[in-house]
Amino acid sequence: MNNSYGEIFRITTFGESHGPALGVVIDGMVPGIPLSEEVVQRELDRRRPGQSQLASRRNEADRVEFLSGVFEGKSTGTPLAMLIRNTDMRSRDYGNLAEVFRPGHADYGYFAKYGIRDCRGGGRSSGRETAARVAAGAVAKCILARYGVRILAHTLALGGVRAERFVPEEIERNAVRTADPDAVRPMVDAILAAQAARDSVGGLVECRVSGVPAGWGEPVFDKLDAELARAMLSLGGVKGIEFGDGFAVAERRGSENNDALSPDGPVTNHAGGIVGGISNGAEIVFRMPVKPTPSIALRQQTVDVANRATEVEIHGRHDPCLCPRLVPVVEAMTALVLADMCLRHRALRNF
Amino acid sequence: MNNSYGEIFRITTFGESHGPALGVVIDGMVPGIPLSEEVVQRELDRRRPGQSQLASRRNEADRVEFLSGVFEGKSTGTPLAMLIRNTDMRSRDYGNLAEVFRPGHADYGYFAKYGIRDCRGGGRSSGRETAARVAAGAVAKCILARYGVRILAHTLALGGVRAERFVPEEIERNAVRTADPDAVRPMVDAILAAQAARDSVGGLVECRVSGVPAGWGEPVFDKLDAELARAMLSLGGVKGIEFGDGFAVAERRGSENNDALSPDGPVTNHAGGIVGGISNGAEIVFRMPVKPTPSIALRQQTVDVANRATEVEIHGRHDPCLCPRLVPVVEAMTALVLADMCLRHRALRNF
Amino acid sequence: MNNSYGEIFRITTFGESHGPALGVVIDGMVPGIPLSEEVVQRELDRRRPGQSQLASRRNEADRVEFLSGVFEGKSTGTPLAMLIRNTDMRSRDYGNLAEVFRPGHADYGYFAKYGIRDCRGGGRSSGRETAARVAAGAVAKCILARYGVRILAHTLALGGVRAERFVPEEIERNAVRTADPDAVRPMVDAILAAQAARDSVGGLVECRVSGVPAGWGEPVFDKLDAELARAMLSLGGVKGIEFGDGFAVAERRGSENNDALSPDGPVTNHAGGIVGGISNGAEIVFRMPVKPTPSIALRQQTVDVANRATEVEIHGRHDPCLCPRLVPVVEAMTALVLADMCLRHRALRNF
Amino acid sequence: MNNSYGEIFRITTFGESHGPALGVVIDGMVPGIPLSEEVVQRELDRRRPGQSQLASRRNEADRVEFLSGVFEGKSTGTPLAMLIRNTDMRSRDYGNLAEVFRPGHADYGYFAKYGIRDCRGGGRSSGRETAARVAAGAVAKCILARYGVRILAHTLALGGVRAERFVPEEIERNAVRTADPDAVRPMVDAILAAQAARDSVGGLVECRVSGVPAGWGEPVFDKLDAELARAMLSLGGVKGIEFGDGFAVAERRGSENNDALSPDGPVTNHAGGIVGGISNGAEIVFRMPVKPTPSIALRQQTVDVANRATEVEIHGRHDPCLCPRLVPVVEAMTALVLADMCLRHRALRNF
Repeated sequence: MNNSYGEIFRITTFGESHGPALGVVIDGMVPGIPLSEEVVQRELDRRRPGQSQLASRRNEADRVEFLSGVFEGKSTGTPLAMLIRNTDMRSRDYGNLAEVFRPGHADYGYFAKYGIRDCRGGGRSSGRETAARVAAGAVAKCILARYGVRILAHTLALGGVRAERFVPEEIERNAVRTADPDAVRPMVDAILAAQAARDSVGGLVECRVSGVPAGWGEPVFDKLDAELARAMLSLGGVKGIEFGDGFAVAERRGSENNDALSPDGPVTNHAGGIVGGISNGAEIVFRMPVKPTPSIALRQQTVDVANRATEVEIHGRHDPCLCPRLVPVVEAMTALVLADMCLRHRALRNF
Repeated sequence: MNNSYGEIFRITTFGESHGPALGVVIDGMVPGIPLSEEVVQRELDRRRPGQSQLASRRNEADRVEFLSGVFEGKSTGTPLAMLIRNTDMRSRDYGNLAEVFRPGHADYGYFAKYGIRDCRGGGRSSGRETAARVAAGAVAKCILARYGVRILAHTLALGGVRAERFVPEEIERNAVRTADPDAVRPMVDAILAAQAARDSVGGLVECRVSGVPAGWGEPVFDKLDAELARAMLSLGGVKGIEFGDGFAVAERRGSENNDALSPDGPVTNHAGGIVGGISNGAEIVFRMPVKPTPSIALRQQTVDVANRATEVEIHGRHDPCLCPRLVPVVEAMTALVLADMCLRHRALRNF
Repeated sequence: MNNSYGEIFRITTFGESHGPALGVVIDGMVPGIPLSEEVVQRELDRRRPGQSQLASRRNEADRVEFLSGVFEGKSTGTPLAMLIRNTDMRSRDYGNLAEVFRPGHADYGYFAKYGIRDCRGGGRSSGRETAARVAAGAVAKCILARYGVRILAHTLALGGVRAERFVPEEIERNAVRTADPDAVRPMVDAILAAQAARDSVGGLVECRVSGVPAGWGEPVFDKLDAELARAMLSLGGVKGIEFGDGFAVAERRGSENNDALSPDGPVTNHAGGIVGGISNGAEIVFRMPVKPTPSIALRQQTVDVANRATEVEIHGRHDPCLCPRLVPVVEAMTALVLADMCLRHRALRNF
Repeated sequence: MNNSYGEIFRITTFGESHGPALGVVIDGMVPGIPLSEEVVQRELDRRRPGQSQLASRRNEADRVEFLSGVFEGKSTGTPLAMLIRNTDMRSRDYGNLAEVFRPGHADYGYFAKYGIRDCRGGGRSSGRETAARVAAGAVAKCILARYGVRILAHTLALGGVRAERFVPEEIERNAVRTADPDAVRPMVDAILAAQAARDSVGGLVECRVSGVPAGWGEPVFDKLDAELARAMLSLGGVKGIEFGDGFAVAERRGSENNDALSPDGPVTNHAGGIVGGISNGAEIVFRMPVKPTPSIALRQQTVDVANRATEVEIHGRHDPCLCPRLVPVVEAMTALVLADMCLRHRALRNF
C-alpha cells in the first residue's frame, strides 16, 4: 500500500511535518544483525535541517528511538520500530496557508484526493517525511554491508553548475554535497544568488553503487531499475531518472551501446550495471533531475480552497535547493530497494 | 510479486517466447464492464510482429482467447484470464545461443539469478512477454473510458531524427509510429541504414494522457509518477524517464518552474500533470529513452556459460528499432497504472 | 487479493464451472525442481468427478497442460501456468436456476456483491474451481518433498459414521477415502441412503502432516495454524477447524494440556504440532466439519432474483457428500500453505 | 507480511512485552472520520491487565497516544500511528526463563525459527502484543459504525461451566465477561479453584455480529469466514473455530442444514451468516476454543536452550484463564477483518 515499501524487507512510514512525530516500522528484518541507535542517528544527522545557511533553519534534533525489534544490540527478526519526535514546530509560519494552495506543491492534489488536509507545513507531503526513510535505510545498509555493497550519492549539478570530477571523500566535506572540490564555490554562489532573489534553484543528483553481485533484481515488473526508478520518483522534487548512459542511448546504434562481455565481467558500462532488470556485477549508476524548491518568497498566482484566484508569498523555513539534503535520502531509498531485492533473491536460491 | 502488477486491479502474466503460450490473469476486475475479444485483439494487432519490413518477421497471429471472467459480453468481477498461443516458433534460430550470453541481453543476469534458463528466443525475458501486458491494458482502457481518459504514445525520436510536430491521427498511419508526418521518411531511412549495416538504432517514446481528474495517485511511495516510472522501466530497453520538463528543471529557478494555479487549473504544465505524486488535472506527459535493439548481426565479444571468452553473431528475427512496437506497450502499461490508481482512489472516497 | 494465495510461493487461479477452462499461475516458483504434467495429473485424477456412483457423474478428463515455466523437465523460476479445459458442460441442467437462488449456495451473496453472476453451474463459486488448487498443490508437494514433508487427509466421519482406526494405505482404496477399513461399508450406505432420499450428508475430514521441522510459520498474523485455518475455510462447505485436541481444550487445565518437552521433542501432542503459530516438529493434525452438499433434489423454499418467494428442486450432477473429493483438495491447500511458509522461513535465515 | 493485516485497511503492529512500547500503524484509513484518543482508550481499558484478581496483576496504564493521521479531530487519510508505552516491566520475573523453554509456549518454535529471542515476558509472542490490535480495532469500529455494524464477543464456557443465556448488557458487568448472569459465580469459582491448584483453565469465546449487509467477503481464498478464521487463529491460545452450527453439520443432511430463503432474508441461520464466503445479511456467529493459560506455577518437564532435560515452574504475573481479556481482542480482530472487507467491497462497486 501507499505508505509501505518492499516485499520481504518491508517498511511502513508515518508522520506529518507538524504532528507529534515521524516513524517507521520495518517488517521482515533479518535476525541477528548488530544494530544501535547511533548507527541510525549518523544517517539522520546527514539529512536533518539547520546544518548551514544553505538549508532550512528549522532546528530539529531528529533524535531516533528504537521502540522494538532489538534485544541486547541485535535484531530479533520481529518488527523494528523507530520514532523521531518533532520538536521545533512553528505552525504559525503556515497559518496563512490554510486557505490557499501553493504552486508546485502537493496541496492542490491532496485536497482533490482526500477533501481534507493537514495544512501545517505540508503535513504528510512535507520533505520531512523522508526522515523515516533515512532511518530505515540506515538499517538496510547494515544488511547490505554483509555483501560489501557501497552506496554513494552526490550533487552532480546545481543551479547550472556541473561537477566535472568525482572525488568520493569530498562529498561530506562541503555543504552542497558535490564530489568535485572545484564546483563547491560556484554551487554555493548559485544558491546564495537565488536566495537573494527570494527564489530557488534545481540540480542533478547522481547515485553510484558498487558491490552488488550479478543476479539481483526480478525480470518482469519488478526489474531492479524499475524498482529504483519508483523509489527515486517517490521522492518529492525528483522529475525523472536515467540509468547508465540514459537519454543518450536514443541516438546510439546497438554496436555502440551493447556492453561486450569478458571473463572479468562487462567490458564497458553503458547499461549502468543493470540489464534486463537484473544486476550484471558492474557499478550501478543513475541520475535524477531535482526541481527547484517550490516554496519561494516571490509573489505567485494561485487559487484558494474555494477555487478563487488569489496570490501567495511563502515565508516558512525552506531549503533554497533540495539537492544537498536529498543526497542521504537517495542513498537510503537505494539501500531499501537493494536490501529487499537481496532477500527476494535469496528466498528462492540454493534450494 | 515479480510477475504481478497492481494493488486492486491486479494482473499476473506468464509465458515464454518459445513456450506453448503467453497469458494474463486480471484479478480485481470491475463487474459489469462490456468486453469482447475483438476489443483486446485490436490492441494486440498493433503490437504483433510481422507487420512490416521494419519489424521482426516472426509471423504470430497473437490471437487472444478469453478463458474466464466474462459472461454474456460483460465482466463478472471474477478473474479474467486471457490466452495467446505461440505458433511460429523457430527454436533452431536460437540453437547456437544456448551456450553463449548475448551482450546487452538479460541472459547473463538470468543465469546468475536462477542457474537455469530457457534459452530459446530469450525465454521469459523476450519482448514477446509484453503481448500479455497489451491484452490486459486493453481491458484497463475499457475501465478508464468511463472517465474519458485518453492515452496516446508515439515515437518522438529515432536514430537521431526528432519529431517536431504532434499530429495525433498520424501515429497509426506510419510504420514508425511518429506523430510528425515530416519525420516518417527520415526515421524509416535511419532504420534501413542500420539494418544494412547489420546494426540497430535507439529512440525516444513519449506518452500523453488526457482526461485524468485531479486527485489520482498516492502521496508517498506509490506516487503516480513513481508508479508510471516503475511501469515504464519494467519494459525491456527503456533506460530512463522524465515527466513534464524533466531533466531541464535542473537548470531552472523555482519562479520559472512552478505552475501557477488559476480557477481553470494549472496555467502552465512544467510538471507534466503530476505534483507531489498526485494528478492535478493537466495533461500527463512523460518521455523515455529506448536503447537500440541489442540483438545485432555484427560480430560481438562475449563469454559462454563456462565464462570463457568467445564471439557471437545473432541471426534471429529481430526488430531493428524497438520504438514502433513499444508504442502500444507503453500505452498498455500506462492504462494498467491508471486503472489501478483509479480504483485505489475510489476505495476510500465518498465514504 | 482474492484469487491469489501466498506471499513468496504465490498462486493465482481463474475459471468458472461452465466456462472454457480453469487454470492457475504459480509465481515465486523455486528454479530447478523436476516437474512433469504426469505428476500433476495424478493429483487431479484423485479429485476429478465421475469416478464412482458416489460422486457427480459429470465426466471431465481434467487434463492438465503446462503453458510456461518448465524447460526440459525442470522449473525455470518463471511463472508456471497450468490449464485445464472444461469439456462436459451441460448448461441446460442449470437453465432453470438463472432466476432463483439456491439455499445454502453462494448465489445469493454473489448477486448482492457483484450485481451480476455467471449462473451456469455456480460459475466461479462451484467446487470445480478447486481443480486449479489441486494442480498447484501438486507442484507445492514437489517442493516439500525436498524436506520429507508428507501430507495425508482422510474422511474421519461421514453421515454419522466415525472412523476408529487410521490405516494410511486404506485411504485411496475406497470410494469414501476413509482410513478405517471397517468404516467403508457403513459410510457408503449412509451416502446411498441419502441419495435415495434425494438428500445429502455431511462429515469430517482430518489432515495429518509429518516431516515439518520446528520453526516454520510466522508468529503474529500469519501463524501457521492461522494460515491453515484460512486455507481450509476457503474451501466451500468447510464450516470450522480445530488443531490437535481442538475444542476439547476448553474443558482442560493447563497441567493437562501443555505438552512437556524432552530432548526428543514434545512428549505429547495436544497442540497438534503448532505452538504460538510456529511448528514444533511434532505431527501437525487438524480436523474440519464439512456441511452436507447444499444441492439436493428435495423441494426447498427460496427467492428469485426479484426477491419473490418461490420453490426450487436442484437436478444437476452433484456429489451426495463432499468429503471424499475434498480429501485431495485439503492436501493441496495444506501443501500450498506449507510451501509458502517454507520459503518465507528460508528468506531470512542463515544470513 | 507477518506483522501486517488487511488489503486496503491495513495495519502493521510492533512491540515486545518488556520493550519500550507497543504500537500500530493503520495505512488505508478512510479520511474524514471523527476520532479521538478517548475512543481508543475505552477499548484498551477493557483489555488491560490489573483489573481484578482473576487477571494478571501487571499494572499497565496502556495509555494510547496518536502520533499521526489525525488533524483537528478527524482522520486525514494518511497513516494513523498509535503508541502505547510499557511502564510496569519486571524483567526479573523472567530472568530464570532465559535458558529454558516453557511448555505450551512459543519459545521453542521462536528459537528454532530465529536462533535468537527476546526472552523477557515472551517478547513479541506475549499476549501483550494484542494491545496494538485492540487500538486498531477501535478505529475499525468507527468505520463500521457508519454501517450500523455491532460486534459482541463473550465467554461462552469456562472451566467446564457453560453459559445458557445470552444477555448482552451482562457481559461488561462481570469479571469473566459471560453473557449469562447465572454463570458468573460458577465461572469465577472455576478460576479460583485452578489458581489455588497453581493451575489454569480453558474455555470458549463466542462472537456475534449484526448489521453486516449481504455481499461482504470475497468468494475464493479470502472468503469472509476464511479471513475471520485466520484472524481468530492468529490469537495465541485459540485452537479452533466454527461458524454457525459448526462441527454439528457433520451429522446433518442437506435438507436439515440448508437455510431456506425468504423475501426477508434467510429463514434459519445454520450457516452463521456466511455462505460461499460472502455475508448473507443474517447475524454472523462463530465460536473458538481457548486453551488453558500455559504459564502455570506447577512444576513441568522441559528442555533448556542446549536441549538438555530440565524442569520449570513459572512465577510471572499471568491470567489464570485467557477468555475474559480475550473478549475485547476478538472483537477488535473481527472489526479489522470487517473494515477491510467493507472497503474491498466498495472499491469495485457502483462503478
